[in-house]
Amino acid sequence: MPTAAILIIGNEILSGRTKDANVAFLAERLGALGIPVREVRVVPDAEAEIVAAVNALRERYAYVFTTGGIGPTHDDITAACIAKAFDAALERNPQAVTLLENHYEPGQLNEARLRMANIPAGGILIDNPVSKAPGFQIGNVFVLPGVPCIMQAMFDGLTGRLQGGPPVLSRTVTCLLPEGRIATELSAVQDRHPTVEIGSYPYLRNGQIGTSLVMRGTDPMAVEAAATAVADLTRAYGDDPVITPGANG
Amino acid sequence: MPTAAILIIGNEILSGRTKDANVAFLAERLGALGIPVREVRVVPDAEAEIVAAVNALRERYAYVFTTGGIGPTHDDITAACIAKAFDAALERNPQAVTLLENHYEPGQLNEARLRMANIPAGGILIDNPVSKAPGFQIGNVFVLPGVPCIMQAMFDGLTGRLQGGPPVLSRTVTCLLPEGRIATELSAVQDRHPTVEIGSYPYLRNGQIGTSLVMRGTDPMAVEAAATAVADLTRAYGDDPVITPGANG
Repeated sequence: MPTAAILIIGNEILSGRTKDANVAFLAERLGALGIPVREVRVVPDAEAEIVAAVNALRERYAYVFTTGGIGPTHDDITAACIAKAFDAALERNPQAVTLLENHYEPGQLNEARLRMANIPAGGILIDNPVSKAPGFQIGNVFVLPGVPCIMQAMFDGLTGRLQGGPPVLSRTVTCLLPEGRIATELSAVQDRHPTVEIGSYPYLRNGQIGTSLVMRGTDPMAVEAAATAVADLTRAYGDDPVITPGANG
Repeated sequence: MPTAAILIIGNEILSGRTKDANVAFLAERLGALGIPVREVRVVPDAEAEIVAAVNALRERYAYVFTTGGIGPTHDDITAACIAKAFDAALERNPQAVTLLENHYEPGQLNEARLRMANIPAGGILIDNPVSKAPGFQIGNVFVLPGVPCIMQAMFDGLTGRLQGGPPVLSRTVTCLLPEGRIATELSAVQDRHPTVEIGSYPYLRNGQIGTSLVMRGTDPMAVEAAATAVADLTRAYGDDPVITPGANG
């Protein structure tokens, strides 16, 4: 099954100024495409860190998605770092220049903005339907912007390039039991359903303690069987569980 | 200057089910303590991944903070993995057992819940004022739960163990210019203020494009001087910028 990693590039995430909103979006979409995300890293706007992370992740996972650092300012260094990671030249891409020329008013396409057309040699552009400055793909690495609404639009345009396995399915059993009460038997259910990943997530809502038990897997029958076994377990403890499709019941 | 890394442990983050809320909190607090966060990783509930990440990060950074995986269920494997990373035995900690005994009603402290008292040998407990099950510190690694309100209360109780450098200060200049218009001159301001990190973050608010320019550094005079230079730059482009203390102006 092909797997993916996400590399978030940006000092603003590491300082706490900005809460990342891209991991959850990409992880959900990629899971549905049968490409589960297995690792995320956040690194600063620093060449050595970005190059090392890109090379570590692209070797290990079928796909790598980066977000951030492809704008026009001095702290936008992602394209240059990706070029370095691939030992490729950073070139002014004529197709990207045309996109920018068509987007900006006459006289507004200054040298800083033209930097957004610098793409590693061999890179294939990723269309930006929102603000035109493109992302790019090189090898198994997809380079996207950090602004969520733009990133999302660009991701939706590139999924045709991805080859996933069977989609990851999920069921959630929500009960009003503390997870510690059922933990031993839950572990036994997990052992009996080894192809399904069972996660236990406690919550406190309106003063009420409960647990969301999430079953994930690619075999619909196996996911269903595990969900039924977990629901039966909670019933044995006197609960009346709610079973919902998806991971957020 | 001491630096930190954060290791988020949990399938629910990698699947997109749960949006991490711990990085922003820890990053802000640690920055204020003079311990900037320089890397974040998110790994699944899988022993090899957790052990490798802990060992990579604890070697490289002064402090490592982990969140997640210290509850009573089968998918809570962080303590065992940290023991393995440190080549330490995983022991039932008598002090932790007492905390749990005092917390649970008679008959409710089952074997699954007692697992929360399994701590690597040499670990120093971290007090949990909310739900009693402790975290622990071993070497430069601090092991915290994933539930944000509990993690936050526990972090606030352990800061006495941390030795920071000068606090990271910030100023934000908010202007109604697109970042691409001022990027070239902004880069020159960055070059003239090398001890200050200048970040440029575009935004779209109520249909209005603008840019937040964030100055960060440990020298108050240098941060102030860079903020003044950036504000003057935006004025030269006809803007009337707002300067605020902190990174979220």
